[in-house]
Amino acid sequence: MMKIGLMGYGKAGKAVANVLANDPRYQLCWVMRRSSSHSAHLEDQPQIPVVGLAGLDMGDWLNQHPVDAIVDFSQADSVYLYGQELRRRGIMLVSAISAYSPEHLDYLRELGRDTRVMSSPNITLGINFLLLAAKLLRGIAPFADVEIVEQHFREKPEVSGTARKIAETLELQDDRVTSLRVGGIVGHHEVIFGFPHQTVRLIHDSIRREAFGTGAAFALQELAECDKGLYSFDDLLLHKIRQHLLSKA
Amino acid sequence: MMKIGLMGYGKAGKAVANVLANDPRYQLCWVMRRSSSHSAHLEDQPQIPVVGLAGLDMGDWLNQHPVDAIVDFSQADSVYLYGQELRRRGIMLVSAISAYSPEHLDYLRELGRDTRVMSSPNITLGINFLLLAAKLLRGIAPFADVEIVEQHFREKPEVSGTARKIAETLELQDDRVTSLRVGGIVGHHEVIFGFPHQTVRLIHDSIRREAFGTGAAFALQELAECDKGLYSFDDLLLHKIRQHLLSKA
Amino acid sequence: MMKIGLMGYGKAGKAVANVLANDPRYQLCWVMRRSSSHSAHLEDQPQIPVVGLAGLDMGDWLNQHPVDAIVDFSQADSVYLYGQELRRRGIMLVSAISAYSPEHLDYLRELGRDTRVMSSPNITLGINFLLLAAKLLRGIAPFADVEIVEQHFREKPEVSGTARKIAETLELQDDRVTSLRVGGIVGHHEVIFGFPHQTVRLIHDSIRREAFGTGAAFALQELAECDKGLYSFDDLLLHKIRQHLLSKA
Amino acid sequence: MMKIGLMGYGKAGKAVANVLANDPRYQLCWVMRRSSSHSAHLEDQPQIPVVGLAGLDMGDWLNQHPVDAIVDFSQADSVYLYGQELRRRGIMLVSAISAYSPEHLDYLRELGRDTRVMSSPNITLGINFLLLAAKLLRGIAPFADVEIVEQHFREKPEVSGTARKIAETLELQDDRVTSLRVGGIVGHHEVIFGFPHQTVRLIHDSIRREAFGTGAAFALQELAECDKGLYSFDDLLLHKIRQHLLSKA
Repeated sequence: MMKIGLMGYGKAGKAVANVLANDPRYQLCWVMRRSSSHSAHLEDQPQIPVVGLAGLDMGDWLNQHPVDAIVDFSQADSVYLYGQELRRRGIMLVSAISAYSPEHLDYLRELGRDTRVMSSPNITLGINFLLLAAKLLRGIAPFADVEIVEQHFREKPEVSGTARKIAETLELQDDRVTSLRVGGIVGHHEVIFGFPHQTVRLIHDSIRREAFGTGAAFALQELAECDKGLYSFDDLLLHKIRQHLLSKA
Repeated sequence: MMKIGLMGYGKAGKAVANVLANDPRYQLCWVMRRSSSHSAHLEDQPQIPVVGLAGLDMGDWLNQHPVDAIVDFSQADSVYLYGQELRRRGIMLVSAISAYSPEHLDYLRELGRDTRVMSSPNITLGINFLLLAAKLLRGIAPFADVEIVEQHFREKPEVSGTARKIAETLELQDDRVTSLRVGGIVGHHEVIFGFPHQTVRLIHDSIRREAFGTGAAFALQELAECDKGLYSFDDLLLHKIRQHLLSKA
Repeated sequence: MMKIGLMGYGKAGKAVANVLANDPRYQLCWVMRRSSSHSAHLEDQPQIPVVGLAGLDMGDWLNQHPVDAIVDFSQADSVYLYGQELRRRGIMLVSAISAYSPEHLDYLRELGRDTRVMSSPNITLGINFLLLAAKLLRGIAPFADVEIVEQHFREKPEVSGTARKIAETLELQDDRVTSLRVGGIVGHHEVIFGFPHQTVRLIHDSIRREAFGTGAAFALQELAECDKGLYSFDDLLLHKIRQHLLSKA
Repeated sequence: MMKIGLMGYGKAGKAVANVLANDPRYQLCWVMRRSSSHSAHLEDQPQIPVVGLAGLDMGDWLNQHPVDAIVDFSQADSVYLYGQELRRRGIMLVSAISAYSPEHLDYLRELGRDTRVMSSPNITLGINFLLLAAKLLRGIAPFADVEIVEQHFREKPEVSGTARKIAETLELQDDRVTSLRVGGIVGHHEVIFGFPHQTVRLIHDSIRREAFGTGAAFALQELAECDKGLYSFDDLLLHKIRQHLLSKA
């Protein structure tokens, strides 16, 4: 059973903790967060401690609470706190931070020389598959009309990052993206391929934040089978698919 | 411009003729059908003859009306009429016959030694992509629940062959396929992947029979870049995708 | 069996003729069109004549070929050709002309004093129901966010008239309508009601032009039960529903 | 501002409390539940007490904490606890209990002689609209094929009560209902009307349990404008629509 430490205990972090703590392939050993107030353990899982970063020595902590992988849903700078220990101990990293600067990414790349690192701003399995499938169909049928429609809750301020990412991947102009803000929709993404005599729709619906946890669990499993290096979520998917496709060739 | 001869002038054949005659990449030279009554040329395209098989010598005909490829939407036995000429002249074959017996398929395989042959019971681009994408996601996420829903016009007698093919490809029991018969729906196929916290839907809607023509046109183009041999539509898609994926590796 | 005469034999007219000729409630007696060339009878129905207007005396024609109702899918001015005869004989009128001027509409209103007249620019049953249902939900839940999405074939030049009509009926700004042009979609209209914790979608898909025929058949049946007067399709629906709702009260 | 007391603090009750406490039209004064342990006030709303039933005198409580309406999401027998006080004081009742026996319903009917009572097993606004709209379209177009599809999370044991209710209302056989169990879908209901040349789909998606609160808030507002009596949610909708439709006649 792979031992996991989780950085971050915000809304996404809590959802991920919830998923990993209930996945029989993993043992969630601890959660670390910036402030150390309130509860000192996971809700409903008193054996899993939630500790504050303040005054903590990462080396000591890992000696006493060793893990095989760190999952990071906290903040860009966290990587500097655990990076050297990760490298020295060969701990894997699955990071879902979207706010990395080029410097952060350089640092991750460097870590990738000594251990396995996956970094991706969107770690949802379904969305990443949608991206991949849309890219494939776009490659197969560049003559099809493509429209991207995303629907989210009324308050969401701007075009979803995922929709922009899809447009970018498919090399579509921004005006191919329609954003609708209606009621309390959690997250709906649809890519429509219009052919002269048929239509293909690829649709993803988010139900709740725990989807990040499913993605993290998938990434951990795939990354464990890779060589050292820095990977994106897309790389892991392609890696899996390429094996699959080539083995059938 | 690739010169094409079309076998078959039933409902599907007419739709395919219509598409190929309007595709600038191809020159539809003639259409052949069993009975030779009625019109002697394509509707709206008087320069394209529609001829009956009766009493026709295929060798003479091809001498006078040479083509680069034959597209077959007629009947299983037609292949024996043109097979030897095809082989001798190195003419490509794109066949959408679904009723081939094992003997027919053996014969096609033999033809594949001397020329390029594609045979597939469903030649729709969108459906074949759906199959491929569903297979990929099934491979990536075998733990997701999968349901197949197909909706067709009231009179369609049994479960759609496409839905059964999807179930077979995904190694699902038949009870994972739901067939709804409502009004005049042309053809709707949906594969639902249910994850704990998200849903992915792959949906194909047929608008009209001409979709077969788009598929035939795609197959002709791809087959032209293959080596001699017998291929399925799926092979052509994978061939295209593998090039795409590997070139990016 | 109600005897019907059809004005207009363009694409919509042909589709309507096709539906009415196969509906056991109606007997399509004749079709009238502007030019009289080509075939003198309905395709596949040699007993139903298709006649040209030129040189025809409407009174004589109706003496020899009497009908209970006229269905008009031709042009705005046609009403002046048959109006007086219709009035004198008490023939019902179901008109689907969208280009009527205020003068035409005044004339229809006048006809409505002596006979039953229904005039509506969109005579599709499903679209009219969509309009009605959307209006009801808007009335019940004015606080819900509403978005209208329409999808049509690539060449369709502007926002669909139906979508504009829905927006107008729901008193929504034009920017609540999204028009997507993709491939060969015949006609897809969707009204999305977004509530904080749930979503309601009303969706209409056109399959083919014959839907106009189903609407005309419905209008004929309902109009036959109304008093003299000028009605819209919406009036007929409300009439039917009101009876239904009140009878249960 | 209408003063509300809420019975029940299970999953649904908590969600309803959450909605009512944030709706400016209402003042949620207190929540009552069977057991009195844990928190003595609403989460994030310390001014709203959550009290246990044990040892409580309903008359005394209402003297000190008067309300205009009671919303009941607890259990069938609760109505006997507050029924007499409700009657004496003319307090309105909105009850979402689905497990009422005929005796309970008789008691509610009796209460309806002295005050306004609404009782409905499903109090979701969207679902009730779906039922109504489906009933209307069924009445308008009895010749259309109808199929009901419901999709829920994998563990949901049997056909959804809502789907069965729709089938019953539309007088459809049970085999017109398809139940799919996939992943973690909260609740998806779709009624498909298949016409020969068009399709109408009415779709409801639940996002979260708080939808019950929106329904309760709607029921409170509508019930306040009714005469004394026992109503269903459907009655309230029809009441609103009938006014709407008749006023336009």
